[in-house]
Amino acid sequence: MEKALAGVRVLDLTRVLAGPYASMILGDLGADIVKIENTQGGDDSRSFGPFVNGESVYFISLNRNKKSLSLNLKSEEGKAIFLQLVKEADIVLENFRPGTMEKLGLGYEELEKVNPGLVYAATSGFGHTGPYSQKAAYDLIVQGMGGIMSLTGEPEGPPTRVGASVGDITSGLFTTIGILAALNKRKETGLGQKVDVSMLDCQVAILENAIARYAVSGSSPKPTGNRHPSITPFSVFKATDGYVVVAAGNDTLWQKWCYTVGREDLAQDPRFKTNGNRTDNWDALEPLMSEVMSQKGVEDWLTILEEAGIPASPINDVAKVVEHPQVVARDMIVHQEHPVAGSIMMPGIPIKLSKNPGSIDTPAPTLGEHNEAILKGLGYTEEDLIRLEEAGVIVGNAVLNK
Amino acid sequence: MEKALAGVRVLDLTRVLAGPYASMILGDLGADIVKIENTQGGDDSRSFGPFVNGESVYFISLNRNKKSLSLNLKSEEGKAIFLQLVKEADIVLENFRPGTMEKLGLGYEELEKVNPGLVYAATSGFGHTGPYSQKAAYDLIVQGMGGIMSLTGEPEGPPTRVGASVGDITSGLFTTIGILAALNKRKETGLGQKVDVSMLDCQVAILENAIARYAVSGSSPKPTGNRHPSITPFSVFKATDGYVVVAAGNDTLWQKWCYTVGREDLAQDPRFKTNGNRTDNWDALEPLMSEVMSQKGVEDWLTILEEAGIPASPINDVAKVVEHPQVVARDMIVHQEHPVAGSIMMPGIPIKLSKNPGSIDTPAPTLGEHNEAILKGLGYTEEDLIRLEEAGVIVGNAVLNK
Repeated sequence: MEKALAGVRVLDLTRVLAGPYASMILGDLGADIVKIENTQGGDDSRSFGPFVNGESVYFISLNRNKKSLSLNLKSEEGKAIFLQLVKEADIVLENFRPGTMEKLGLGYEELEKVNPGLVYAATSGFGHTGPYSQKAAYDLIVQGMGGIMSLTGEPEGPPTRVGASVGDITSGLFTTIGILAALNKRKETGLGQKVDVSMLDCQVAILENAIARYAVSGSSPKPTGNRHPSITPFSVFKATDGYVVVAAGNDTLWQKWCYTVGREDLAQDPRFKTNGNRTDNWDALEPLMSEVMSQKGVEDWLTILEEAGIPASPINDVAKVVEHPQVVARDMIVHQEHPVAGSIMMPGIPIKLSKNPGSIDTPAPTLGEHNEAILKGLGYTEEDLIRLEEAGVIVGNAVLNK
Repeated sequence: MEKALAGVRVLDLTRVLAGPYASMILGDLGADIVKIENTQGGDDSRSFGPFVNGESVYFISLNRNKKSLSLNLKSEEGKAIFLQLVKEADIVLENFRPGTMEKLGLGYEELEKVNPGLVYAATSGFGHTGPYSQKAAYDLIVQGMGGIMSLTGEPEGPPTRVGASVGDITSGLFTTIGILAALNKRKETGLGQKVDVSMLDCQVAILENAIARYAVSGSSPKPTGNRHPSITPFSVFKATDGYVVVAAGNDTLWQKWCYTVGREDLAQDPRFKTNGNRTDNWDALEPLMSEVMSQKGVEDWLTILEEAGIPASPINDVAKVVEHPQVVARDMIVHQEHPVAGSIMMPGIPIKLSKNPGSIDTPAPTLGEHNEAILKGLGYTEEDLIRLEEAGVIVGNAVLNK
């Protein structure tokens, strides 16, 4: 069955993570992704480790299902080629610093003249408006500036970075949503529009109830370690040989826990009767629960709690995650063959569509791998390609290796 | 200008966070959201603190732009009303434990018969397939099981929960993308489909390069504290009066940092020449940089580093985030008037569309606030409504207060 976004043509100027994450999702769902890379080595992340046979596995795992066209957008002929592609495109996606495309003469206002139906999506550190717009940002910068680090870590400990790049990734996700919403509207109006998503904005958007808690209390929420700020018990406990998450998120589950572990007395304790009581009296409850949980191993606890119907889990490292039976059953770990790097393990597609499912079909491209196919599609000849490569408009092995 | 998703009708059966986050985004972008709540108090999160004038600010901040219909789906008449609404709906969204809708006789296969164009989106802890499908999950469970906690925290420290509910939120984001991709396809085929998104799958999807690093090294990545695992220096340093993020993500920025802080000697040091050198020799570099950064205050450093063009930021708490000039300039903090709770501060809309922007128009509904409007739209009379309320099919104040 044809994929959900089959026929959607994306010109993808993005580099590193936020933008490539968005185009990866679009490509997984069937969009045609032409990754347009600079002629000075292409996407910066091609030089990010780890490497296998000289190829960046970082790059490989984010750029599956994409074609690569190397194109010098600073050259007149490079611009002309780009504009030809824009005429036939549905989406242009970029994550340059705001103003970069305008300096090239390729800002949305110019591209809109060439193709009024174009959806132009930009994801950037701070967005295309506002006083910080022109500043550079990276994941760690927006994690620090946007508040999530102030909520992560041990109580009284230092602010802590989230161990995945949620600054980039959430921006990639919101950008994808913006693109698809704009495409939806275009089917009615025929008109595209600009989608402007900022990494910092996305960090604010994912703070959700921390903003409500601040608004009501007037003081900034602090890191709560592994404890949920308002649901109790919802925490991590040390077992004899590791950690166990216990999420007894309501009064019934709390009672169950007490009876299951043989502490019926706690079930009757008025300090712990309601979720509000337990949250208020966590300082008293935590050592009591920790004492109980410290007496058995992780596997024992998981068996006991599961039998009792109390949500619990181990803390898995990546080795355990990739072998987790549910993760495997849902095809969330994929091994894709790359012509140089060999078989590469990467995350699968978390959006499961019943009739038009996504799929992972082609490995990440080498720089300029699809120069020939794309440019011949625009009417360029073999001789043109050689001339373009000699003039520095394109680079890549597609032509020179012939 | 009409919003991007104007005219898209969503029947939203979701509770708490993952699902309501998805329907909030759809509503912000203009979809018509009918939140269908149970008659036993509605969405569980109506009872989650903090509260203002007895209203949950947690609930209020996630349920703007939605209407509420209280409906007992276990009653025959409740089901009949729901099926009438399904006929006219574009999307049904639910985050029940898998099988719940089937037990009610309202699973996708039944609903598809009533409306073949329906997009049926389910977000759940573990998804609708696989051996864990029937288990309960919460954010903390999938954070623990999905690997992100094993990457977050101090090196050698305990695994650490991300301070925002990324298990729920990323699931809400991927679900929204799946819905919009399915709507896109429907415009061609006329057919809807089922979108099945699991919180655990989404945690795997956001691990991105941690999986590549594991695949290449054969050992699970460990928490790296505030340091980027492969880009150096990209870390947090203690200044005299707080913390500063320094993100000198390439060799040029590294050289700039050395000259700016008066440590030209480090710029020449072969241990620190390339990003690879710096990453390999972080144990030697970290104390040298920390020593330098410990000598001035946060504001001084931000001024100095900004002048030099080196990306840097403070670690903001929520109080600073909500007043940050860029956050304010981008309308990312919204104060919305709620009839009972008063003015409530909440995150704005991070997807900025140039022609059909989203907006926040109506406050979170009281339980059953729109019973009357919705049911009269289906042809029910005032008398019918009173009868339905007496029969326990609906609850709410809309009728009884008359």
